[in-house]
Amino acid sequence: MSDVSSAERECGKAFLPKFDSQGLLIAIAVDSETKDILMVAYMDEEALAKTRETGLAHFHSRSRGRLWLKGETSGHFLRVQEMRVDCDQDALILLVKPEGPACHTGARSCFYRRLDGEDLEPIA
Amino acid sequence: MSDVSSAERECGKAFLPKFDSQGLLIAIAVDSETKDILMVAYMDEEALAKTRETGLAHFHSRSRGRLWLKGETSGHFLRVQEMRVDCDQDALILLVKPEGPACHTGARSCFYRRLDGEDLEPIA
Repeated sequence: MSDVSSAERECGKAFLPKFDSQGLLIAIAVDSETKDILMVAYMDEEALAKTRETGLAHFHSRSRGRLWLKGETSGHFLRVQEMRVDCDQDALILLVKPEGPACHTGARSCFYRRLDGEDLEPIA
Repeated sequence: MSDVSSAERECGKAFLPKFDSQGLLIAIAVDSETKDILMVAYMDEEALAKTRETGLAHFHSRSRGRLWLKGETSGHFLRVQEMRVDCDQDALILLVKPEGPACHTGARSCFYRRLDGEDLEPIA
């Protein structure tokens, strides 16, 4: 993909996702209603294709080394309403409608704690 | 860091950031007023320490292989108001007050395009 110029990638109309040396890009799932960030994960080419094809967020699990349909066991799917891409096209925002808590802990968002000095505190 | 249990990391009060095999974690900068995602980048241990120490967002530039104070050349610093961590502590949200456009293209946010079919369209 090194034949794509920065200008094309940053200013063009073409969607030219840039995967890193491990074949991954960052995908941030955001609640389309509240604008809260629900979770962040990686996508490879397969996960991106499946997400676009089905409208359900798919990621690449680095720990399991495989395609991961978010909600495949919990039923808590993320329905993708819109996708946004950053300047150099190596990160995506998925605006989603979550069908249940996005976090495996049962929290609505994986970001349920803030740093307060040296400690973590739950976000009200 | 493998001696830290999942339960400690997910439920505890201790901040135990989990860097990946490349020594990095994901940091998402969010405008603390509008909740818009401004940019996403990586932090290593040094960037995280510098961010906490100075209150200005620092990242690790993978392309340049070095510490990167956001705004070091442009003056467009990101002042960190709050940091949030996700369940497994391998991703951070920085709630920031941006001192100028966050994107090197001059856009307020790096996410200035959405996917419309096969094409990218500017976000109004």
